[in-house]
Order: sequence, then C-alpha cells, then structure tokens
Amino acid sequence: MRVIGIDPGLRNLGWGIIDVSGARLSHVANGICHSAPGEGEGDLAERLKSLHAQLTEVIRTHAPETAAVEHTFVNKDAVATLKLGQARGIALLVPAQFGLTVGEYAPNAVKKTVVGVGHAAKAQVDHMVRLHFPGVHLAGPDAADALAIAICHAHHQQSAGRLVEALKRAAG
Amino acid sequence: MRVIGIDPGLRNLGWGIIDVSGARLSHVANGICHSAPGEGEGDLAERLKSLHAQLTEVIRTHAPETAAVEHTFVNKDAVATLKLGQARGIALLVPAQFGLTVGEYAPNAVKKTVVGVGHAAKAQVDHMVRLHFPGVHLAGPDAADALAIAICHAHHQQSAGRLVEALKRAAG
Repeated sequence: MRVIGIDPGLRNLGWGIIDVSGARLSHVANGICHSAPGEGEGDLAERLKSLHAQLTEVIRTHAPETAAVEHTFVNKDAVATLKLGQARGIALLVPAQFGLTVGEYAPNAVKKTVVGVGHAAKAQVDHMVRLHFPGVHLAGPDAADALAIAICHAHHQQSAGRLVEALKRAAG
Repeated sequence: MRVIGIDPGLRNLGWGIIDVSGARLSHVANGICHSAPGEGEGDLAERLKSLHAQLTEVIRTHAPETAAVEHTFVNKDAVATLKLGQARGIALLVPAQFGLTVGEYAPNAVKKTVVGVGHAAKAQVDHMVRLHFPGVHLAGPDAADALAIAICHAHHQQSAGRLVEALKRAAG
C-alpha cells in the first residue's frame, strides 16, 4: 500500500509518500509545494491554483493509493486559521479528485503514533522520522511532518485491517 | 462583462451571475451548491470535491469573465473558521482554474455598495438584490448574497475603469 501524508499550509505545503508492506515502511519521496505571496487582486486564488497544480503533479507522479491530512484547527488567530483552512481545502480536494480516501489525524494522534506520546515536541517528530528513514533527504520540517502523518495513517490502516481480519476469524 | 459572485460555505455555497453593460446590470442565473455532511473517513474531502465539481459546472455553463468572493474571517469559533476556509479555498480555486481574476470583498464593502451603509442587516441586502432584479427567483439567502457580491464587483471594476479612462484623458 502506498500512502501520501500531507501537512497543509498556504506558503509551504509538505508532502511525504511511503510504501507499506507488512510491518515494513519504506520511503518513496517527500517535498514541499510552495506558493509565495504576490501582490494585487486575485493573488490568493492564484496561490491556491498553484498549490492545486503542484499537488496534482505529485499524486500523478507517485500514484499513492490512500491519503492522510493533518487536522489542525487550534489557532487563536482567525486570519491565520482561515488561511490554513483555504490551503487545507486544496490538500483534501486533490487526493479526493484522484479517487483516494482521505484520512484526517489530529497533531496529537500523529505524535502519539510516531513518538509514543501526544505532547511530543516538533523536533522529536522530526528525529523519529529521520530514524525511520535513515539517509533520506528531507525537503524541510513540513515534509518531515507529512511523512509522520503518512506513518500514522499506515499504522491506523493496518490496525483497522488486523481488526477486520480478527473479526472475520471470530465470525467464521 | 459577465461577473460571478460567490458566497462561500461548506454546506451551502451561493453563486450569482450578472451581466454588466454600461450602467445596466442584468441577472443571468443564481443558485446554491450543496454538500451535505456524510459519515466516516474522507467525508470532508468528498464534500470539497463535490463543491469543486458543482462550481466548475456553473462556470463552464455560464462562462463569466471575472469573479468575486466574499472575504469573511471574523468568527470567534476556530472550528467554524477552518471549515469556512476550506470551502473558501474551493471558491477561489475554481475561477482561477478557468483563468478568471478573483476579487475579494469584505462583507461591509458589499453592504456599502448594495445598500449604501456598511452595517446594513442581511435582510436589507436581500431586499436590495430583489429590487435590482425584480421577478427573479432567488435560490436562497446565500444566492442573494452572491448576487450582492457580483454587484459590488461590477461597481468596483467600473469605478476602476472610469479612473483609468480619466487618467488617460488627463495624460493625453
């Protein structure tokens, strides 16, 4: 199973793709879709269009089978929350347009899976991702976060799969 | 000039299209793109995909030349703001994908243009839109708001056009 994790942001939208085979996770690719703030009318729409085009290209190239997006909303600043929401809309839309199911995970769920505790520091997540995929070049912190989200999704999908198998065995 | 106004929302995304010819505004069409909340994983992504498809169809059918989206962000509730942001991302993305410029107007700017005062009640905006386009069936309050946004955009585009003309005459 190939998984894409996405860490949404308007300026930097991180993505990370991993392959899952049994208990083995392997790194496929990671990167960041950038959209620099411009000037004048229609700038925000152009930035969202650019993010959409970049993320579409990533999914077309690497053909993941399932997707996961971080579910952040705790932000005191309404302007920042709205901006994040707009980028997040694109992060959810693109995989759905490719027919992928899109899981959503709260930051604490991602940390709990990758580090073992929900209140882990960002640096710890980065460290564990590097430990998982030694020697892999990470495009930046947002790409490391995206890989962590992909790992979290793989873990949850596998747990759910094992549960279904166990239920089938119990029923059969 | 044909203008589309969009009032973004996740459940109800209003749209209204008008033609502008000199001082004359005429109604072309209005409606609401719906996305009902479903259940289970990937629901939000599916809703955004559905809104994207519906709005794409509206623009393909009516071929507006310019677009305007309401710029709302004043909301105390971060969850609601994030939701709105996600829908707003789609509202900005689709016209940009058709190569349209996308104007953004604060609710007060829309009210000031349509009613004459920035603090007008929602019912007043609705009333003025009905007065502008007598006999036109409005799909709902979100469609009326979208038409108000389109009127506001037409007004600002014309003012800007007249200014450019005046500057040209002064320079020539």
